[in-house]
This record gives sequence, C-alpha cells and structure tokens, in this order.
Amino acid sequence: MDKRNYTNHLTCNEIKIDDPFWNKVIGTVRENMIPYQYLALQDKIESAEKSYCIENFKKAAEIVRQLKNGQVPQTYPVDKWHYDESNTDDKAFHGWVFQDSDVYKWIEAVGYSLINHPDNELEDKAKQYIDLICSAQLENGYLDTLYIINDRSKIFTNLKDHHELYCFGHMALGAISFYNATSDRKLLDASCRFADLICETFDKNKNEGYPGHELAEKALIKLYEVTGCGRYLDTAMFFIDQRGQKPFYFDRERGVETSGEDYRYNQAHMPVREQKEATGHAVRGVYLYSAMAQAAKIRSDESLYKACKNIWENIAEKKLYITGGIGANADGESFSFDYDLPNDLAYAETCASVGLIAFARDMSEIEINSKYHDVAELALYNTVLSGMASDGKSFFYVNPLETDPVACECDSRKRHVKPVRQKWFSCACCPPNIAKIFSSLNEYICTQNDSTFFINQYIGCDINSQMADIKIISDYTNSGKISLNINVKKPFTLALRIPSWCNNFSISGNYKESGGYAYIQIDSDCKIDIAFDIKIRLIKCSNLVRDNIGKVAVTRGPIVYCMEEADNGKNLHLLRLSDNSALKYQDGFILADGKRERPEQELYSDYTESKYDNCKIKFIPYYQWANRGSNEMSVYIRI
Amino acid sequence: MDKRNYTNHLTCNEIKIDDPFWNKVIGTVRENMIPYQYLALQDKIESAEKSYCIENFKKAAEIVRQLKNGQVPQTYPVDKWHYDESNTDDKAFHGWVFQDSDVYKWIEAVGYSLINHPDNELEDKAKQYIDLICSAQLENGYLDTLYIINDRSKIFTNLKDHHELYCFGHMALGAISFYNATSDRKLLDASCRFADLICETFDKNKNEGYPGHELAEKALIKLYEVTGCGRYLDTAMFFIDQRGQKPFYFDRERGVETSGEDYRYNQAHMPVREQKEATGHAVRGVYLYSAMAQAAKIRSDESLYKACKNIWENIAEKKLYITGGIGANADGESFSFDYDLPNDLAYAETCASVGLIAFARDMSEIEINSKYHDVAELALYNTVLSGMASDGKSFFYVNPLETDPVACECDSRKRHVKPVRQKWFSCACCPPNIAKIFSSLNEYICTQNDSTFFINQYIGCDINSQMADIKIISDYTNSGKISLNINVKKPFTLALRIPSWCNNFSISGNYKESGGYAYIQIDSDCKIDIAFDIKIRLIKCSNLVRDNIGKVAVTRGPIVYCMEEADNGKNLHLLRLSDNSALKYQDGFILADGKRERPEQELYSDYTESKYDNCKIKFIPYYQWANRGSNEMSVYIRI
Repeated sequence: MDKRNYTNHLTCNEIKIDDPFWNKVIGTVRENMIPYQYLALQDKIESAEKSYCIENFKKAAEIVRQLKNGQVPQTYPVDKWHYDESNTDDKAFHGWVFQDSDVYKWIEAVGYSLINHPDNELEDKAKQYIDLICSAQLENGYLDTLYIINDRSKIFTNLKDHHELYCFGHMALGAISFYNATSDRKLLDASCRFADLICETFDKNKNEGYPGHELAEKALIKLYEVTGCGRYLDTAMFFIDQRGQKPFYFDRERGVETSGEDYRYNQAHMPVREQKEATGHAVRGVYLYSAMAQAAKIRSDESLYKACKNIWENIAEKKLYITGGIGANADGESFSFDYDLPNDLAYAETCASVGLIAFARDMSEIEINSKYHDVAELALYNTVLSGMASDGKSFFYVNPLETDPVACECDSRKRHVKPVRQKWFSCACCPPNIAKIFSSLNEYICTQNDSTFFINQYIGCDINSQMADIKIISDYTNSGKISLNINVKKPFTLALRIPSWCNNFSISGNYKESGGYAYIQIDSDCKIDIAFDIKIRLIKCSNLVRDNIGKVAVTRGPIVYCMEEADNGKNLHLLRLSDNSALKYQDGFILADGKRERPEQELYSDYTESKYDNCKIKFIPYYQWANRGSNEMSVYIRI
Repeated sequence: MDKRNYTNHLTCNEIKIDDPFWNKVIGTVRENMIPYQYLALQDKIESAEKSYCIENFKKAAEIVRQLKNGQVPQTYPVDKWHYDESNTDDKAFHGWVFQDSDVYKWIEAVGYSLINHPDNELEDKAKQYIDLICSAQLENGYLDTLYIINDRSKIFTNLKDHHELYCFGHMALGAISFYNATSDRKLLDASCRFADLICETFDKNKNEGYPGHELAEKALIKLYEVTGCGRYLDTAMFFIDQRGQKPFYFDRERGVETSGEDYRYNQAHMPVREQKEATGHAVRGVYLYSAMAQAAKIRSDESLYKACKNIWENIAEKKLYITGGIGANADGESFSFDYDLPNDLAYAETCASVGLIAFARDMSEIEINSKYHDVAELALYNTVLSGMASDGKSFFYVNPLETDPVACECDSRKRHVKPVRQKWFSCACCPPNIAKIFSSLNEYICTQNDSTFFINQYIGCDINSQMADIKIISDYTNSGKISLNINVKKPFTLALRIPSWCNNFSISGNYKESGGYAYIQIDSDCKIDIAFDIKIRLIKCSNLVRDNIGKVAVTRGPIVYCMEEADNGKNLHLLRLSDNSALKYQDGFILADGKRERPEQELYSDYTESKYDNCKIKFIPYYQWANRGSNEMSVYIRI
C-alpha cells in the first residue's frame, strides 16, 4: 500500500467549542442529560423503565467478595437476552445482557464533559461509580455482571448473542475518556486487566471467537493508542480477520453447521475483507466498519481499506436516509436492501447514526474527501440531534421520516415507531450515546497531517494546534457565514470543507479547490471570511426508492426540514408543493405556498382530478419535531 | 322489528352452473384440486409441507379403541398452537390445533362437488375418511384429535386459543354438505352428537364460554336448519350474545383480569351488539358477522342486524381492498384501522374474502340492496380467484396488491408476502376454502322470496325454482351481455342486479329500478336480453389511503387488472398513465399508452422534473398474476 497522506483528528484537549447553535445542546447535555442519566442508572427516575445498572454492579461486587472469601455463590441461567425482574430470583442479574454498557457510556460522556467543563462534584460521582465497577471485577480481570452474578462457569461461551466483549469495549472507551479528563488511571488499569485477559483468551491457537456485537475492536485499538501496548492492536486485528471465516465460529459455539446466512446479522457471514455491502444490525455494522477503517489506517492495510470503501459507498449511495439515518429495517434493527428506505417504517436508530459519524471521520483520516464529513454532518444535524428532546430528558431510539400517531398506536407493524420521545429505555443504548457524542463533538471538527489543517465541521471553537491557534466564529446554520482568526505558529495549508449542499460560496483569500476542500496557504496571521450561500433546496430522492417517488424534501444548509401536524393540520400527505412554490426562511422555519388536496371519503370512485385548496405550509427543522406532543410528521412532501 | 321481506338463496340442488368463465375454474377444482388435496391430507404430496391430518385421526381412533378397552392412554401437553414433529413423541398430535378442519373442509367441498357432478369413486374416498373420523369420536360425542390424543382431561379448557369449537363447525358444515349430496347421515349424526354435547356444556348456568375462533355459531344455525332442532339455534345465540360480556370469559379461563383489549383479536372485547367496527383477526371476524346476520334474520332480531350493518359499512367503506380483500395487517391477520390499506404489506387472506362473500349474501337476505353482491363479486373475481393457480395445484394465502420479489426475499417485514403461489401449507386453511367456495358457487347466484326472484351474480346456469325454470346464458366478464330464457311456473317479479361498475345498460322489457336492481314483472315465458356496457375504468382510491394517493387502478367489469414484470419489465413503480391514456381491451388484456420514468441512480439530488420515455403498458387480470414465475406485480399505477 502506498503510504497515504493520513490525517488525524484533533482531540478535546486541543479544541474548545463556543458556538451559538451547539452551546445550547452541549449545555443541555451537561446540565440536564448527564445528571438525569446518573439517576436513571440507579433507577431513580420516576415512571421511567428500570435500568438495573448500578444494582447489577452491586450484586456482582458481592459475588466477588464471596469468591474472595472462598464462598460458592449460587448460579442462575444465562440463557436469555433480557432477564425480567418478575421471573428471576432477586439476587440474580436483571435487565439486558448489555446493561453494564450504559454505566460505561455515561462515564465516557462524563469524561468528555469534564475536559470541556471541569466539575468536581460530577467527577466525584463518576469516581464512586468507578470504585463500584472495580469492586465487581474478577481477579483475572474479567468484568461482565451478567456472568459474574449468574454463572462464572459459562464466561465466553456465547459470544454470538451475549455482550461480554461489547461491554468490555464500552468499559475501555469510558476509561480512556475519564483518564484523558482526570489522569485518574483506576478504570483504565482495570480495563487493561480485562483487555489482557481477552488477549490471552482469544488467539488463533486457543479460542478463535470474536464479538457477536462488535466494539471490542475499536476499544482495543484505542487502548493500544493510549498505552502503546501492541498486543491490544494484534487482538483487534485477530477479531477483525477472524470474523466470518469458515468454519464459522458461531456454528462451532452453537454446535450446528449452517450456511452462515443468519450471521449476516452480525456481519459474520463472510470474511470482512470480502464484504461489499452494509448488512445486518446497523449499529454492530458501523462499529465494525469504524474499527476496520482505524485498523486499515494504523496498519496501512489497503485491502481492509478497500472493503471499508465498498461498504461506505453502499451506505452513502444506497442505504442512507436524507436525515443521515441508517438501518431501515426494524426487524433486526438492520440495513435493508439497496434503495429500500421506507419513511413510516424506518428504524434509523440514533446509535447507528452516532456510529456512522465515527466511521465517516475514520474514513476521512485515510482518504481526503469532503464527502465523508458531508454524511457525518447530515447525521449530526438531523438524526442524532433529533434523538434528544429540547430539554434533554426524553429520547428517540427510532427516527422515522413520517409518523401518524394513529398508525403508531393501531398498527403493530409500526410498534417500534414512537410519535413522542420516551423518558428512558430499559434498553437504553441511545441516550448515553447522544450524551457521549455531543460531549465529544470537539473531536469531529478538525483533522490534520504534517502540512495541512482541515476544517470539516463549521462549529464555532478555539483551536490550539501545533500549526496555529484558530478561532472559528460560526453562523453556519443560520447565514452560512464563518470567520476564522488565525495566529500562525508555522506556515501550513488550510483546507476548508465545501459542504455538498452549497453551490456558491466566497472565501476571502486565494484558494484552490480539490476533493471538496478549498486549500489556502497560510504563512502569517490572518482573518478569513467564508460565506456559504445557504439556500432553501428541494431535494428529490432516487426514484428507485419507492416511497419517495413524486416527492421532495426541503432542506436548508445541513438541516433537513419537516412538516408537523401542529403547524399544518392532520393528513400531511394531502399537502403538496407546486414546482415553483415560493419558499421563505423566517425565524428558523420555512414557509411555502402549497396546496391541500380535499379529503375524499369515498373509498373507490371513477378517477377525476383531485381538488385542491391553496394553503401555507410550514416546515420546521427535523431535529425539532415532536417537541409539541404527539402529532403527525413528514419529511417528504408531494410535488 | 318490522317483518322484513327476507330472501333465501337457492341451493345447489336448484341450480346448475354452465358458464364459459366458471366451468374451467370449477373443473379445475373438481379434477385437480380435490384429488390433490385428498393426497395432501395424507401427506402424499412430495415437497409440500406435511398436514398430519389423516395421521392425527388414526391416532385418535387408536386412543378411542384403547379407552373402550379400559386402557389408560398416555397424555401429552396441549399448550401450543402448533405441535412440531421433531419435538414431540411420535404418538402425540402433530400440526396445528385446527388441523382436523382441513379434512372437514375437503369433505364439504366434495359434498358440493358431488351434487353438481356425481362421482362414485370420490364419494367412496370421502366415506372412508368419514369412517375414520367417526371412529375417532369419543362416546360422549366429543371430537377434536388434539385433545383426544394428547389429554382428554383438558377438553374445553382453552377456548380462547384452541379450536375445538371451530373444528366442530367445519365438521358439521362438511357433514351437511355431504348429507345433501348423498343422503348419507353418518357424519351428520356424528356432528349432531358433538353438537348435543356442546349444547349441554355451554349454557348460562354452566360453562359461559364461547369460541375463540368463531364458526360453531354458523354451523349450529345450519344444523338447526337441517334438523329443525331448536337447541342448536339457542346455543348459537348463546355464543353470539355471551361474546364479549363482562367479566370476560377468556379472563376467567386464563385466571387474569384484563381490559379485554387483547380480545379484540377474537372480536370478544365488547358485546357484539355494541360493536361498530370490523376488528381483530379478519377470518374470525367475518365468520362471526355472517353468523350474526343469519341469526338476525332467523330471529328477526333488529338490534343484531344493526350491529351487522354498522360492521358491514365499516368494512365496505373503510377497510376493503379494491380486489375485495380484507384484513390489511399481517400481524394478527387482522383488520387494520380505517383507510389503512397498504399494497405491499397487505395480508388480505383468501379465507377472509371467502368469508366476506358469505357475510355479503347473508346481509342481502335481510336487506335487499345490490351493494352486498357488488362486494361479493369483487372478492370472488379477484382475491378468491387469485388464491388458486391456473392449474389448481398451488395457492395464495396472502393476496398483496403490489409485490417485489426482492423485497419479499430481503425484507422480513414482508415475509408473509409470497411472489409465487405455494404448494400446500401446513397451515392449510385457504386451499380447501377455495375448493369449497368454487364447488358451492351455485348458492351465491340467486335469492328469492315469495314474490321476487333475484339474480345477483351473472353466472351461466340452469335454475329450477318454484317460480320458473330459468336458463342464464352469460358473457358477463367478456361483453357484459346476458340472456335469460324463462319458463314461468307462476307469475313473479324478476330482479336483476345492476352492477355498481356499470353506468349504462339495456334490458329488453319494462323495468323499474330500485336499490340497485331492475325489477321486471314476468307473467309468461320469455327471453330477456341484458347488455351491461362494460368499459375500462380508471378507479381512484380515497386519498385518505396514503399508499394510493396519485394513483389509479384499472378495472373492467368486475375484474381488477394489474401489471406484471413479465409484461412490463422491472420497477413497475416507474410506470405512469397519463390522464387521457388510450386504453384498449384485447384478448383478455388491457393495453395502455403510458410513460416510464427514467431510473435515477443518484440517491439525493436537487429537484428537477423527471424524464419519461413513452411506452406501452400491459395489464392482466389480477386473478391471473403469478402464473409465470416470480416477478413484480402492481395493481395501482401513478397517473
């Protein structure tokens, strides 16, 4: 592989966000969401579903204490994905197999938040959790409360369906974040002990298994980067390359012989280097693809990169909602087939878009092309932002592009689609992932290599890099205008992403365009003004997407808009834009001249042209929907 | 209740079909389908799913023998809907809880077929089955092989989920059909013994239960009509009126207390006289509604009729596919909410349309209005006829209005939708129901009361009624022309249904129009010529049906047409009719001038008007689809 001109992203320590759009979001996460989730982990949120998280760690710590005292704790079955309180002994594990990960994700979010906004009280709360977590770790480094509580003898015997390696992944990522924020090594050391056990256990000559739910790969790579310990990278590569090899490990584990088709769900139906299509459970998928891209970069592994690129293109060109959502199929929370992007049945899990943003950045660090950040931007400003209510206290798991509360209530095919955000899920993967990405948003803004500094997202911030101190003052989502104040430390090339939504822009200074970036040579302190012409656009979807034929979506800059019943009345599908509708942006909304088809009660009748009444149509940003109670919503409108 | 001018339908003994359109269908049923199903019941069809039907009766007969000898047979659990061969003792019951009903439905179809077409060999085969069935009956009259084989002590303890009363219903209906054809009372007597047991068991002061899957109501009413035994009618009325009363019987049976919302599936969430909406499992629904209508007529029960009428209107005006399909939701095989009629996710079970045809006729016998037969006609010529392949050897259970084989294969949300008919289902309710309705089609043609003779379906036939001998010569589906040769026995009024699809017609002779019928006084022998102007129509669906907005369906007379990939290539959704397309009927097909939108690969782009190429579009009758292998199909087309 030719040595590519790899880039690296800046970390939270090098960049501080100060942005009129994002300050509020990040503030909500810090002030409301992180404290709220702290209580949720302890099941102290009234009327929210129980998480059992802290309860499980306490039970596991008690088991560890008993084991140290030579006692033989009772065992319970480890045969399910979810352990219901009502059916189980009070001392047994409760909740989902991956319940531990919620605590780790909260710690990861806290770590990022502390870097940006030190808070002794919050740090102490996290340390109390970390003390509890570490007291639940077995002497050999193993830590998964399900198996510690219920049956130590069955550890690592169900990699396909259970989440020990996934929980390890979140443990390590939480530990690294907290260590970066506080220099406190306690959880990091514990994670390394668990990682050491994993490296000893999984190996070509010992246990040839790999995670059923990917994440350990990314965590091991990051642990390698933090500690410099090469075996962590080796084991990550082992997991990546072992995946999908024949005979299938999951077959051996289950004692069956299959075609491997079922392991498509786990992206383990064929070796990853041969995979050309995004398939299976979408969150698992993007976690794997992200790890593959990171490994391809570290190891300069061209064939691994090619696989990533094929999969990326399949997602971006055939499986991506206009909102940056992925994973169209609720069944298996999975990628559907090419061009199958139903609006009302969409799954489009918030976590999957969080993972997609990371995969995009990882790809961009190998190949300089603005398209990766275009997709990340879509996901960030739409699906991910939509995942959280404006008060940070309720959340979407599923992000449909069209909802009708009647259908959500009456139609069991849409039981995954909720017309209002929920307080907290017992299966709470999304809320802590939202807290985490907004707390670590700094790390998605810029990348750099030896000679060039890339600005990928136009979020107002203060940057302290080796090349320069840069202040970004951004009015990106409003006027499309950005100013950069640059204090040069050494001459460099500045690369400014030209968003794919922008056909017309001005940049003060001489620039050359390439790969979606404007390149400017910076030799001395300067101020650069950028003006992206931000217009209302009508976007059509490929007519191979059956749901959207004859329709358009309304966008402005990175923001996708939608209609809500609260503004436009019931039966949004009866509304229609004319080709030359006047559209006007005003106070964050878009107003359009449109037509409303008169409702026809008669079920079947001879075809006559429909009758329309003129009307005004109001569009709000998609991420703001469902903040005014249960009502109809639609992104697409007929034209 | 005012004494209504009730009508009665003619039976198979009074009317013989001879029709160019239907002879072939009925011949296929008699020559291919009935022999094929005879083998399927014995699991002698290679590569078809096993039915276990005859096997179960043999096992039950052996148990009855043992019981008579004072032996105590082993017991097995009765805790499931389906009993898998691989998980169960070889002596236990196999298959679905309602497996017995397939045999009874076959006998019912055979009975009707024998009336129309005597066949000693077939009669003997049926008698052998009847001997086997009777040898499996308990001494007290009970007969359900699941409980006889697996656990006699649990009889009638799970009315909600199990199908003892449903199987009784099919047993009695089969027995009556066979008795009418052959005068052989053996199965009829056995059914009466079972009915006697049911009448003794279920009663206000004893067991207040009622069937989880309705049908016993209809069967008891028909047994009452055949035998004159009033307690059968009384028990049918008890089942009807007990249904949905509080406290819920199903709650008591299960030992729980619920809101009854779950019993919506069984139409048992509220008393039937209060129900205004078609809800729950569609087949169960129409079997209940049909029984309610029959009971309302026999008892001149106005409030029961009102409930039927409300439910009918809800179906016909808000829950009916243009193909006469009902039950839009695959989950629970159930009616969905008003105007929810998805094309590609449709369930629209063949059996439900068979049941709807009966319900329509029952309603028409209370209220003279052609609308009932309009709906029956739609269901008959489209959904029901589509249920059978042209060779009578493969069947549709689910009748979608749009299919894409890729989606059927890749999208688990559409796993119920098959792009080709299947050989035989282990859950084989539909094929024998198809055989039954085509074999008994005679009974759906005419109704009469003291003064008036109604022709409701224009199927060629020879009628021998008390008023006249009438020969109907029909070219209905082709030219819309029908001739009647009438030999009068006593003066009467002839009522000819004017199909709702026809705006223009001529009838030789003086007539008055009322309620969708043309009334003609017949005093002497005569010939009447009818010409319904049969035109190609473009039908639009209410724009409250979200799936069909901006689309039309093409129909001609009672036949709904569709496009297939075999004629029109892939991506049928890219085709479009212009408002003034020339449409031409030719050799049973319809040809239209249309446009094909050029496929756009790019997932998202700025809106521009789509580009079209002119093309010819070919439509075939919906009932003929999927006879040329797996391919795309669509009823609706954009306009």
